[in-house]
Amino acid sequence: MGGPEIERLIGLLSRLPGFGPRSARRAALRLLMQPETRMLPLAAALEEAARAVRPCGTCGNLDSRDPCSVCADPRRDRTLVCVVEGVGDLWALERAGVHRGLYHVLGGTLSALAGVGPEELSIAPLLARVAAGGIAEVILALGATVDGATTAHLLADRLGPLGVSISRVGQGLPMGGALDTLDDGTLAAAVRSRQPA
Amino acid sequence: MGGPEIERLIGLLSRLPGFGPRSARRAALRLLMQPETRMLPLAAALEEAARAVRPCGTCGNLDSRDPCSVCADPRRDRTLVCVVEGVGDLWALERAGVHRGLYHVLGGTLSALAGVGPEELSIAPLLARVAAGGIAEVILALGATVDGATTAHLLADRLGPLGVSISRVGQGLPMGGALDTLDDGTLAAAVRSRQPA
Repeated sequence: MGGPEIERLIGLLSRLPGFGPRSARRAALRLLMQPETRMLPLAAALEEAARAVRPCGTCGNLDSRDPCSVCADPRRDRTLVCVVEGVGDLWALERAGVHRGLYHVLGGTLSALAGVGPEELSIAPLLARVAAGGIAEVILALGATVDGATTAHLLADRLGPLGVSISRVGQGLPMGGALDTLDDGTLAAAVRSRQPA
Repeated sequence: MGGPEIERLIGLLSRLPGFGPRSARRAALRLLMQPETRMLPLAAALEEAARAVRPCGTCGNLDSRDPCSVCADPRRDRTLVCVVEGVGDLWALERAGVHRGLYHVLGGTLSALAGVGPEELSIAPLLARVAAGGIAEVILALGATVDGATTAHLLADRLGPLGVSISRVGQGLPMGGALDTLDDGTLAAAVRSRQPA
């Protein structure tokens, strides 16, 4: 129905996160109704981004510049490096505007199940950055998961001898979180990380 | 964060139906992680579809062939034409495999609110198709909305003098629909369209 071009487009769209076959069909139809104003601009934007965007050689952020716009920003605190699992985490922290230092993107977490060891992550480059000097504190902003905690422990072990201060982002109630709607793990973390009132 | 190429891509993705800023960012990130295997193929598919796909000159279906693959299929019953609002409706009926005839895509419904009159819809071409002869029955498969009903009435008025049989798709309980979860309009339609048991 509609020829191989439409089928192929729907197939590729349905592989986007958040898209299934149904929403991919709706999106394809919307695009097909406006080939000049929607479809070709999207095609051009995809090509341009695929051509221009590369991982930053310093921190692993995705950018059309290398060093990336964070690493190149003279206003950032270069003594403070925040370690994140992925670029999506970096984007989230930048949107929140809560980190004034630099980043280091690990590219995931250790995972026994998925067979991800330290060599698969950007750990050696992180150690090299810290060993090169000038970094006072490394903030570990990994997910509150078993693999995130394992990875944080490994990083703390490896970073410790380099004489840098190491911290982890806090755990506890999310903003607006009502206690009776939260899971036991979050409540346990909130009680563990209690602070003087 | 990441340069204008990424911002532009996220902006265009977020205008797809079903996508907001958050899911557009996730999709952009997924694509950026795999520029060669995901991003460029999607760009190529969009360009190819924009180049190849056009409305069928006979029925209005979107296809890379004209006449479209439905109109060109010798196995379809050419005496039976199903009128739908949009190509998405045609796709839905084709997936269900419930119509063995041809189609006619109106391009919407009459709408006093949106200022859509008969001239904005593909009504004259439908009348011309029927007047040309060979069509025995026109099935009106318009949405069960006020505008759908208004449009169906107008079409029945205009088609009547042409001596063609006119039908409307049935209304009532959707498959699996429990009566106590359905709206009053659906229940009223179901009672109105009751059949001998």
